[in-house]
Amino acid sequence: MPETNPMIRLAKRPTGTPTGEHLVYEEAPVPQPAPGEVLVRNRFLSLDPYMRGRMNDTKSYAPPVALGAVMEGQSVGQVVSGPGFEPGTWVLGGRGWQHYCSVPPHLLVPVDAEAAPPSAYLGVLGMPGTTAWVGCTEIAPVRPGETFVVAAASGAVGAVAGQIARHMGARVVGIAGGAEKCAYVRDELGFDACVDHRGDGFPAALAEACPRGIDVYFENVGGAVQRAVWPLLNPFGRVAMCGMVAEYNDGSPAPGPNLMSAVRNKLSIRGFIVGDHPRQFPVWRETGARWLHEGALKYREDVVHGLCEAPEAFAGLLAGKNFGKLVVALD
Amino acid sequence: MPETNPMIRLAKRPTGTPTGEHLVYEEAPVPQPAPGEVLVRNRFLSLDPYMRGRMNDTKSYAPPVALGAVMEGQSVGQVVSGPGFEPGTWVLGGRGWQHYCSVPPHLLVPVDAEAAPPSAYLGVLGMPGTTAWVGCTEIAPVRPGETFVVAAASGAVGAVAGQIARHMGARVVGIAGGAEKCAYVRDELGFDACVDHRGDGFPAALAEACPRGIDVYFENVGGAVQRAVWPLLNPFGRVAMCGMVAEYNDGSPAPGPNLMSAVRNKLSIRGFIVGDHPRQFPVWRETGARWLHEGALKYREDVVHGLCEAPEAFAGLLAGKNFGKLVVALD
Repeated sequence: MPETNPMIRLAKRPTGTPTGEHLVYEEAPVPQPAPGEVLVRNRFLSLDPYMRGRMNDTKSYAPPVALGAVMEGQSVGQVVSGPGFEPGTWVLGGRGWQHYCSVPPHLLVPVDAEAAPPSAYLGVLGMPGTTAWVGCTEIAPVRPGETFVVAAASGAVGAVAGQIARHMGARVVGIAGGAEKCAYVRDELGFDACVDHRGDGFPAALAEACPRGIDVYFENVGGAVQRAVWPLLNPFGRVAMCGMVAEYNDGSPAPGPNLMSAVRNKLSIRGFIVGDHPRQFPVWRETGARWLHEGALKYREDVVHGLCEAPEAFAGLLAGKNFGKLVVALD
Repeated sequence: MPETNPMIRLAKRPTGTPTGEHLVYEEAPVPQPAPGEVLVRNRFLSLDPYMRGRMNDTKSYAPPVALGAVMEGQSVGQVVSGPGFEPGTWVLGGRGWQHYCSVPPHLLVPVDAEAAPPSAYLGVLGMPGTTAWVGCTEIAPVRPGETFVVAAASGAVGAVAGQIARHMGARVVGIAGGAEKCAYVRDELGFDACVDHRGDGFPAALAEACPRGIDVYFENVGGAVQRAVWPLLNPFGRVAMCGMVAEYNDGSPAPGPNLMSAVRNKLSIRGFIVGDHPRQFPVWRETGARWLHEGALKYREDVVHGLCEAPEAFAGLLAGKNFGKLVVALD
């Protein structure tokens, strides 16, 4: 039995980019599981943009992380001890930026580490993948032959969303930051086009890549990307509002598009949170695993080693510095 | 047979409020109906906010009125001559700001002048009423016990929307300009509350009138009213984007709300144009006529006499000066 539980606490609420001042590394004793609970050794921690919102003390879809508390996060790990699981079983449902956690057994989902590498259950088959699945199939469905645009196209959600839209018969255009990511999106993920939002004349390049306008926009980014997309939306366009990572570090929200555009173009703009669609998690886990197995779904991970690296990696995530789904291997 | 056809032409595209300089009165010969067409004597002309958009030479859901052309508009009138109709038959489908028009018979809908006064087919039972019906039942359905807010609540669309939402079991709060309109909305139309957007502390008064937040917002107005509504929208709130009359005379569109609000609150924001829902016109005409007959639907008209008065009346409509559905009696 190890002596300590490395963890990262929220010591101070950030304004702007969070750093080691706000996210503080500590070692605490390994938790004693409450009766009936399961002790889990987290092996991979998922870092996701939504976590930035939890650091603020403002009204949102989930309460903020309390000051001094362990940062929230989802892990895949292995059971150490507890009822209903063989020790060593791989499970989804570990909690917090830490090595060990104690969890009620009904919150743990065993995962098949043969069907896919365990870390995949945090990304392509996990919350980000399911977000893409819900957005593409339920919130803003795309029809064959339509143009589908997704921002942060090499990211954990965007890469899956674009591949699902391709399966649905759409012409898929990605938006990503930098030539390397754009090449990956086109050549590896098989999107029809990918436009670099850091490039000169980005709005014109996007318009050129979407000669028949945009029917569905999967929004992960906001900011200048949103402003370039908006004028290209077609009549009866649909927007899946998943997040706006480019603005998460901003203190006060920038204005959005004038909504007369929604009347003129009969737009449907729908915000969603994947947690409101719990039945879709197992549906996508199965569907996505089958597609992975068939070679019909690609993914890429950006693996950082060691919990102490998590704060810097998270700041990089908000700045678009990661390439692929960001996970921390809790070595 | 009369000698002339009084008409109003779009002589110049307005910036800001349209006046007699842009909308010019003229008399032309009565049109000779093309073979197979019906000559109609328009009796009541509908004035509606959407017409402001048709005066601009910009991309929208319908092409602009050509410079020099008769202004577009819908009338209820009586058949003078033509195939398939008895002379004197009341019909919906007269066209243009003019006394006479020639129309293919398949575009004319006979209306029952016994069931409701002919002008009602332009308002409560016509395009504005159907707009309210589609918005409340299809675009942003409200559930019993929820809070429904509608702007321009004494107007042609808003008054009907609020009454439909009451039928659907919602708590209905109107927004209108001035004490007289607010009293009418509460006392005559039976809304649960009505807030004066011209009053001091309007946003606070609206919040007070909606102690459980806003579940459905029927948007006709935009501007400061939209800014007051937005922070009150509840999780899973729905917004029917019908129009933004407060901004129609503005040259460049004002920014809208930051759309991270749509993610956080899982909002559904849907723009619509009633013309995309043609099957709902007869459905509402029947439903609304039954409710009228039962005393379950109230309406009010603001009748201006004489075509020459139309330009000034239309400018007043955009400024919220009319009280009830604005129609011009073509005496």
